[in-house]
Parts: sequence; structure tokens; C-alpha cells
Amino acid sequence: MRVEILCTGDEILTGKTINTNYSHIARRLGEVGLDVIWGTTVGDDRASLLAAFARAGERADAVIVNGGLGPTVDDLSQEAAAEACGVKLVLSDYWMQRMTESYARRGRIMPANNRKQAMLPEGAEFIDNPIGTACGFAVTIGKARFFFTPGVPREMRRMLDEQVIPRLLKLGGIAGVTRLKRFHSFGIGESRADEMLAGIPGLAIDGEIKLGFQAHFPELETKLAARGATEAELDAKLAPVEAEVRRRLGNFVVAEDESSLEQVVVEKLKAGGHTLAIGETFTSGAIASRLAPLPGAEAVFRKGVIAGDVAAGRLRTESGASHALAVLMQLDPGGDRPDFGATITVQIADPGGMVQRVARLVGGREWVRTGATELGLDCLRRHLLGLPVDERIDFERR
Amino acid sequence: MRVEILCTGDEILTGKTINTNYSHIARRLGEVGLDVIWGTTVGDDRASLLAAFARAGERADAVIVNGGLGPTVDDLSQEAAAEACGVKLVLSDYWMQRMTESYARRGRIMPANNRKQAMLPEGAEFIDNPIGTACGFAVTIGKARFFFTPGVPREMRRMLDEQVIPRLLKLGGIAGVTRLKRFHSFGIGESRADEMLAGIPGLAIDGEIKLGFQAHFPELETKLAARGATEAELDAKLAPVEAEVRRRLGNFVVAEDESSLEQVVVEKLKAGGHTLAIGETFTSGAIASRLAPLPGAEAVFRKGVIAGDVAAGRLRTESGASHALAVLMQLDPGGDRPDFGATITVQIADPGGMVQRVARLVGGREWVRTGATELGLDCLRRHLLGLPVDERIDFERR
Repeated sequence: MRVEILCTGDEILTGKTINTNYSHIARRLGEVGLDVIWGTTVGDDRASLLAAFARAGERADAVIVNGGLGPTVDDLSQEAAAEACGVKLVLSDYWMQRMTESYARRGRIMPANNRKQAMLPEGAEFIDNPIGTACGFAVTIGKARFFFTPGVPREMRRMLDEQVIPRLLKLGGIAGVTRLKRFHSFGIGESRADEMLAGIPGLAIDGEIKLGFQAHFPELETKLAARGATEAELDAKLAPVEAEVRRRLGNFVVAEDESSLEQVVVEKLKAGGHTLAIGETFTSGAIASRLAPLPGAEAVFRKGVIAGDVAAGRLRTESGASHALAVLMQLDPGGDRPDFGATITVQIADPGGMVQRVARLVGGREWVRTGATELGLDCLRRHLLGLPVDERIDFERR
Repeated sequence: MRVEILCTGDEILTGKTINTNYSHIARRLGEVGLDVIWGTTVGDDRASLLAAFARAGERADAVIVNGGLGPTVDDLSQEAAAEACGVKLVLSDYWMQRMTESYARRGRIMPANNRKQAMLPEGAEFIDNPIGTACGFAVTIGKARFFFTPGVPREMRRMLDEQVIPRLLKLGGIAGVTRLKRFHSFGIGESRADEMLAGIPGLAIDGEIKLGFQAHFPELETKLAARGATEAELDAKLAPVEAEVRRRLGNFVVAEDESSLEQVVVEKLKAGGHTLAIGETFTSGAIASRLAPLPGAEAVFRKGVIAGDVAAGRLRTESGASHALAVLMQLDPGGDRPDFGATITVQIADPGGMVQRVARLVGGREWVRTGATELGLDCLRRHLLGLPVDERIDFERR
């Protein structure tokens, strides 16, 4: 199955909007085992759209078109699709009714120009959009099946997962269900994680369970993409592999799936009936601002202090919190540069006493600051979970 | 001049890396008056590259190819370009020497595989890269001139501005020099800014001085792109328009060009010999973390406190700072939702007394938090500059 992604719209073509829809679609397709072979971007221009449809219909088996389904005159996807198919646009009574009802539920009258969104190429396959007024549709142009999706990211994402990917898998003769399992880690780079996971049966970049990494400093995301005949089969296939990945990445895993390091810390503090004060120097509030605004954090977060001379013991006493985290940084002298570094001291005080961890990070002011923020939160996570806080991380320089 | 942007590389094609190079190139070309008509993305694959070159050579006058100039075997741009031109690759002695010297200056020996980066299609025009080992080059394929640029963003950006854009302008018969003037504002939306700037002679989306906006909440960037025969002519042409834009956007302009709101605040505090303490509630350190890490802020920033009950007057006294900024937030009850709002109280205390400003923002937890962070910093800027702190902003709900 050769898939092309065709993004439309002047905002994308001119670079005014960064094309995150493209990367999302491409990543999701890769995760379910579909190969993206080409990407095309054109503006809101009829001739360009027709040319792009013709080219894509020659080289791909399936094409995902994104954007151009809105109610305004510059949204041309339905018209261009009808022209490319040599058919006329016809009104979908079903979609008109759905849109009208949706407006009515919110006590509003549907604007007249929304009617345009119910005009589909004659004979097109209707694709549902449960959360917006731009329905999707599919037609065949050349040798490829074209799937038209809305440009609004949350509508596109849901339609892609629920409607388009199942159709693509069917089209490609790929049966069953898919799942994506994610591990978030701190302290190991992509190549080291790859080594740590080597040799797990069935787990590889081209294995039965597809292994992938995405590094966004300071964290690394390890992804397992799996396909099975049924959910039960997926469970059975994934469970031992997940357990083995969890075991091998060990203490470096800070969270899984939709959770995050800061969320894990808040939950653990809450479960223990603890409260927290945070003291920061050069991170300047970056640690507190990741943790304190989380839902549920109000029960836990007591106080934050940003100053040159924070200390966890004193902070704990003064704030009345059961736990205090202090992250001190001794910056290298001189201006910013690629080998600019800092020596970071993390202190955690609790009713049992105090632990301390010193690390040196190098890589420029912003890099060091981001690393120190993550290191502070991760030391607290480790301490709360009874794990060693002084395990060496890949980013350290000695 | 019809320009196509052709991005290469598996990381981009598969969505692993978000294609910010594309949007940067497209935006810069638009700013100097060049029209991007097509975008193509292909992987590190010889057949795809050749097909993409052929197509682009049919529909465009100029093509910017990005990526594939590295030293490893999956970097295929030079080879594919030579094949498309029907010529062989030849060694650039000049570039070999430049690379060797560059390594030698850092006390290192050039790895053997870097030699690949000095192999250019015979007859290609050499394009300099002063900050990397991937030189650029230009060849003609079909009816278009192709400019090959490196994938490393900072190398691409510099080569684009210094080498490629001047060549494109010459190719398109567009003479002279270009300049981009930027205004950063807070408190006005794109459509209101557009209204405020209506009717300035020569300033329009399609005018002699091209007007553009880029909204990235909470700020709006207003851009003036101008072209002139000489720098002096540009100065003369832009000066009155810049002054008029500055006058009309007035107090809403928080910074210009490379500067930022927080930098303006730090500079103003420093110039006055002031020091600052910051008190935050739900912004949880986000305000301090924008200001305190700036170069020069260490002379100004005295202390930050994150707690439920901050007050500027008390904070000023306790910290010993000359100025204190406190941002308090009363959040709506209930979970996150699109109409989740907060009432924000900004207090500024200084030796002259205290000013206070109350605003209500609505738009979800993160949105409100981002808005309150900007509002707090902007009130401080306004206060330091003697401007009214209570001017109504577009984001407010009453």
C-alpha cells in the first residue's frame, strides 16, 4: 500500500501555519504499518488541486487529502474532487439534517453558507465527522482511493483514527485491530534505549511489534505499535513485551501513555497525603509551572520560591510542607555557547531527612535549564517511589 | 516567478520530524515577494527524488531542495541531481580544502566520509555554507533552476537569506535589497490590527510595503516586508510607515524585531536601577521563568514566590526589591472546558505606591494561564514606561 498525503490551503503553502497535520497523519500511518511514499502541498487553487489529484492518482494506491472542506469560497476540495471524477456535486440530505440538528441543539440557526459543506461529489462514499461540520468523503481518481479529511486538527485526528485508517487497512488487505503503547523516559538517549531493548522476541523496527522512538529533549518516547486480529489477541501479544520493556528501561521510565512525569509525582504525593514546596534558582519557576497547574495539584502544592539561595531543609520548615524539592544551579561563567554548562544540586527534604544528588549538564543555557527542570522532577519521582536518585544519566558530563 | 519547495528525508516524510524548514522557507520567500506554488516531500529514495525533480522542473521556475547533503549513504541529493542532469559527480577541491581547514582549526581530523560532501554535479554552481560542512549548489533541471540547501535549520536559514534569496530575486528580475520589520503586540487580534493599520499609504497585503500578520497567542506579530534599490532607499521608504504603524498600534506594541516583552521589561528595570520580586498563583512560576533566565536579569531579579496568597505590597517589603509584581487568579469552578475562565488581578508595587488592574479571560485552563502570564508582564512594562495599565484588551470578557 503506497499512501500519499496531500495537504491543501494557502496558510500551509505559504508557511504561515506549520504543517503539524502532515506529521501527525504520517506518524499514525507508520504506526499501523502503512507506508507514506509522498507528500504534496498546494494552495487554495483549483488548477493546482486538479494537477495534484492527477499526479497522486498515478503514483499512490491511497491518498489522504487534508483541508479545503470549510464553508467559505476558498475551500475547494469537494468541487475539485467532483471535477477530477467527472461528476457533479449533489446535496447530502443526511449531512444537512445532521448539521441543522447540531446547530439547533446549541440554540442556533445554521448559517446559509454551511450548505456548501453538505455538497459531495455524486457517488462519493460518506465519511462521518462526529465533532464538526466538515464531513469527510472518499472517491477514486486514477488508480488511487482518495480520502478527504478536515483541516481542523482535532476533527482530522479523530476521523483519521476512527474512519480512515480502518478503511486503509482494509484496502491494503491488512486485517485486525491496532494499538500504540508509549513509554516516556528521562536519562537515556535513543541509541542507548535501542540497545537496552535489543533481542526482545517479536519487538523490532520491522518486527511483529513495531518499535519506534521519538526524542524530544529531555524526554525520550519509546513506542510499541502492534496489530492483532482482536483486542484480546493484542492484549495477549503485547502484555509480555510491555512487561519486558518496562523491566529493561527500568527506573528511567517516568510515565506511560497519556500520563506525564509531573502527573506521576502529583499522584504519588497525593496518595501519600504529602504536601510539597519547591525552591528554584536558574530554572526560575519552570519546575513549579510544570507541576502546580495540574488538576489535583492544589491539594499538594504548598509554595514555590525562586531565589539565589534556596535550600530544601529550610524551605520545608518555613512552608510547612511535608516535602521540599530544591534545585540549585552553579552556572559556568561567560555567555551562552554550545558547551555552556552548569552543576546542578537537587535536594529533597522530607520527614525522614534529606537526600541530595549532584549532576553536571552541558549544552547551552536553555538546554541546561530544561535538563535541570526534568532532573529535579525525576529525582522527586524516584525518591517517592523508593528508587535510587543518583543513577547516572546519559546527559551527564563528569 | 513560480517557486517550489522540495523537502527530502525519511524523518520528514514519516512525520517523525515536524517540517518547520518548509514553513520557514515559504514564509521568507513570501516576505520578499516570491510566490511559492507547490510543496513536495519525498524520502531518502533515489527513484522518488528523480521523479520529484522531473515534476518540479516541469511546473516551477525555481526549486529549493532541502536536505540530503549529509555525509552518510542515505544522503542522496548530489547523486540524484547529477543523474537528473545527466552529468557525473566531480570533487570540489575548494570545498575539500575548506572542510579540512575547518576541522584542523578545531584540532580534529576530517572523517573520510565527509569527502562525499565535496562531490558536486559537474558544472554545478557552488553555494557557500559558512557554518557547516554541507555546501549548497545550483543546477538546471527541466525549465527550473534548482537550489540545494542543507537540512540543518541554522545552516539552511543562513544560506537561504544570504545566498539563495538574492539569486532568486535576480532570476525573477527583481532588483534591489529587502528588509523585514517586525512589531510584537499583546492585546489586539489580527483583524483588529488589520483595521487599525488600514489606509496607510503603500502599506497593504499586496502593497509596495507588504503587510502580514502572524498570531501566536498571546502575541500577534505584525510584519512589514519591503524591497528597495538600496539600503538608503529602504530606510527612506520604511521610516515613515514604521513610525505610523508604531503610532497606530500604540501602547499594544510590546517589543520590536529580535526583542521580546520580557527583555524590554528587564532593560527598563535595569536602566532605572530597579530590582524586582514576582508573586504568582495559578501561573505557578511561568512569569518568573520567562524573565529571570534572561541575560542581564540577574542584576534585576530578586525573588519569586508561588503561593495561594501573594500580594505585591507585602512581597516588596519582604524581598527588599524596589518593584513587586503580583498576579492573582480566581479560577472558575469545575473542570477544564472551552469556556473555562479566570478573573486576574495584577498588582504592581513600587516606591510610589501601588497600581492594580483586574481582567477576566476565558478560553480553557492553559489559555487563561498563558494570557495571565503575558498580562502580568505587559502591565509591568506599561507601568515602567508610564503607560496606562488598564487599557482594555481584545481577549477580555466582561
